[in-house]
Amino acid sequence: MSKTINHAAAGNRQVYLTRRSPHYWRLTFDHPPLNIFGPEAIPQLNDIITELETDKHVKVVVFDSAVEGFFLTHYDFLAKLEETTSLPPGPTGLQPLPDMLVRLSRAPVVSIASIRGRATGVGSELALACDMRFASRERAILSQFEVEAGVVPGGGPMARLPRLMGRGRALEVLLGADDIPGDLAELYGYVNRSLPDPDLDAFVDALATRIASFDKQAISETKRFADVASLPTDFEIAPEWDACLASITRPAAQERIRMLMERGFHKPGDVEERLGYYVGQLGR
Amino acid sequence: MSKTINHAAAGNRQVYLTRRSPHYWRLTFDHPPLNIFGPEAIPQLNDIITELETDKHVKVVVFDSAVEGFFLTHYDFLAKLEETTSLPPGPTGLQPLPDMLVRLSRAPVVSIASIRGRATGVGSELALACDMRFASRERAILSQFEVEAGVVPGGGPMARLPRLMGRGRALEVLLGADDIPGDLAELYGYVNRSLPDPDLDAFVDALATRIASFDKQAISETKRFADVASLPTDFEIAPEWDACLASITRPAAQERIRMLMERGFHKPGDVEERLGYYVGQLGR
Amino acid sequence: MSKTINHAAAGNRQVYLTRRSPHYWRLTFDHPPLNIFGPEAIPQLNDIITELETDKHVKVVVFDSAVEGFFLTHYDFLAKLEETTSLPPGPTGLQPLPDMLVRLSRAPVVSIASIRGRATGVGSELALACDMRFASRERAILSQFEVEAGVVPGGGPMARLPRLMGRGRALEVLLGADDIPGDLAELYGYVNRSLPDPDLDAFVDALATRIASFDKQAISETKRFADVASLPTDFEIAPEWDACLASITRPAAQERIRMLMERGFHKPGDVEERLGYYVGQLGR
Repeated sequence: MSKTINHAAAGNRQVYLTRRSPHYWRLTFDHPPLNIFGPEAIPQLNDIITELETDKHVKVVVFDSAVEGFFLTHYDFLAKLEETTSLPPGPTGLQPLPDMLVRLSRAPVVSIASIRGRATGVGSELALACDMRFASRERAILSQFEVEAGVVPGGGPMARLPRLMGRGRALEVLLGADDIPGDLAELYGYVNRSLPDPDLDAFVDALATRIASFDKQAISETKRFADVASLPTDFEIAPEWDACLASITRPAAQERIRMLMERGFHKPGDVEERLGYYVGQLGR
Repeated sequence: MSKTINHAAAGNRQVYLTRRSPHYWRLTFDHPPLNIFGPEAIPQLNDIITELETDKHVKVVVFDSAVEGFFLTHYDFLAKLEETTSLPPGPTGLQPLPDMLVRLSRAPVVSIASIRGRATGVGSELALACDMRFASRERAILSQFEVEAGVVPGGGPMARLPRLMGRGRALEVLLGADDIPGDLAELYGYVNRSLPDPDLDAFVDALATRIASFDKQAISETKRFADVASLPTDFEIAPEWDACLASITRPAAQERIRMLMERGFHKPGDVEERLGYYVGQLGR
Repeated sequence: MSKTINHAAAGNRQVYLTRRSPHYWRLTFDHPPLNIFGPEAIPQLNDIITELETDKHVKVVVFDSAVEGFFLTHYDFLAKLEETTSLPPGPTGLQPLPDMLVRLSRAPVVSIASIRGRATGVGSELALACDMRFASRERAILSQFEVEAGVVPGGGPMARLPRLMGRGRALEVLLGADDIPGDLAELYGYVNRSLPDPDLDAFVDALATRIASFDKQAISETKRFADVASLPTDFEIAPEWDACLASITRPAAQERIRMLMERGFHKPGDVEERLGYYVGQLGR
């Protein structure tokens, strides 16, 4: 019933696929200690999204994490920028990361983010590209921290957040750039609901199992109609990515990222755990 | 002051209009035992919507139910499909059901759904076409159950729900297809507010009485401007209806509807009362 | 560090600018006893918005009030209409009031409304044009009262409210035209959050100080991308203003405004404090 696929050649697998049934898949991020997402993970995630687009049987996929404290966090700032920018564009013509996210949103499959721990930067953007999001009330943190680091977010949140929660709250998330805990995420509509941590897994599993029992064609057609009013066009996503890359190379961002690194960015500890607090201190 | 119109020739009246005043009307669904909505009710509802469009005095209309436990529930699956599809299109060029709903949304009158009991399928779609929705916290249930039955919803909810509550929650309503009680409906923005059941009628009546005292031209012009940013175009509504009809005839839907009928669909009892639970069992 | 500018020639200053730092400005409405906004204040506000558009250093501006009980209330109905309509259009081609509001929304600066007391009519519209809104839970009241007075709101709320809170709640605010207290404003998304009154100032100051420490270019580019999905075009704003002006001159509005004046409109007291209640009585 359950099967796990090797997505990376050897030793560096970070994204795991488990088939609970032909209809119900789980995608688990497992890149300890922080679930940082970088260029190495892109082909792994891309393979699975391609399967979600083409498999005849899958109806629902749940995204979760195997790493304590981190659903999926920011992009890998230690990797060379060229490792990301040298990847060829995806089927949509967008660069691989935004390409995968818009394809996930349009896939004929229901995607559910089950958020426990930190979903920051690309982690938030992946969650926003999913069809639904459920969070641990006590242990989920969502954020777009990028502006604090002098960086324009690149995975589509300026297109997706205002449609989800309205302009005022979206601008607070993007420009306040602070940590958003589970209950506030629910109030703002950042997630569908926050649930008491002990209830999250059972709730998401029941919902996924339920959807997996429905008719795939009814699911995919209904989703496609809902897309019309709720998805941004790719023309809105593309320039966000370009602006993100351009911003990273600017001295203001380089200096802020350097300061963050000095304080413990990219290492287990307080900076990664309380990122909203620490980056709020950089420019003072 | 108050006057009731006979809308059906004889014996089969299901939709009642009461004029509390020239400015304040009530439309009551009374088709016991379940308030199922079928082709017979279409001309009755259409007549009233035409009056709402053309009457010089009416400013506000409240939709409610005289049937215990049901505001307005799903479409009549026992009626022959031809009884619905053979009806001529309405003034918008859409088929009668979506035609009436888009005309209600654009009518120069404020429409308020006062929801006590189940508003499922077409009942939810009628409520969504109203300008505002208020629900009994304890006794309202909203849902789009169709996907569970292998059917694509047809009365516009894929166009209306994402604009009301954002993509994530709209997809949960549409693709989770489960019962949404009053308090969750309020959290999601499915309704404006849920009120304690004993307070619902007085609250809605006070709001309607208040609006009935305002200037009709100021109401209708203000509503028309708000329409620009909040109403889907008919081009978005039309294909939902076609996809709905096409889906009903597919074997997957026919089999699921047959199973539902066997369990007690269309009869008073637990299946109609806890529809979300029962249809979640069909495909397992 | 702090500096206050004289915006009006003499004696009639109503809008005060304070620079807490080159990056963090405060704009305070101080036109006792009611913070009514009229044609005299337009050039004062316009000067500051022009500075916000052009200053090289400012990153965040907080709007607040120095008048007990009133953040900023309705337009001045005692001023001659020509004092407003004779003003030349602004840089966008819109009339000065809507011109200033759309420019504020697009300015490369984060604008935050800190709402204590009543924000009604133009006060609500100014708050809606800001990027974010935070309210005193106990002491904030938001409303668009105009329809009660037979007037179509003119400062953009029909364009802005549905995008912020969905059609149903927006139509309730516009067409119910009642006072919305802080907690309901939070539920509806009219404001980002309502905070206990003693916490409001510290919360807003901390957020503004935080944003003031970020990189201005990252702020302004990120905001500009979020604008795409969240701001109405000027083509949507312009006709609201024209309809507002036309409605004011109609007999229905003139009679209602006259009745309101008789009851105490434009004077300190119960009518201005409980405007939602009083205008709900006019047409009965």
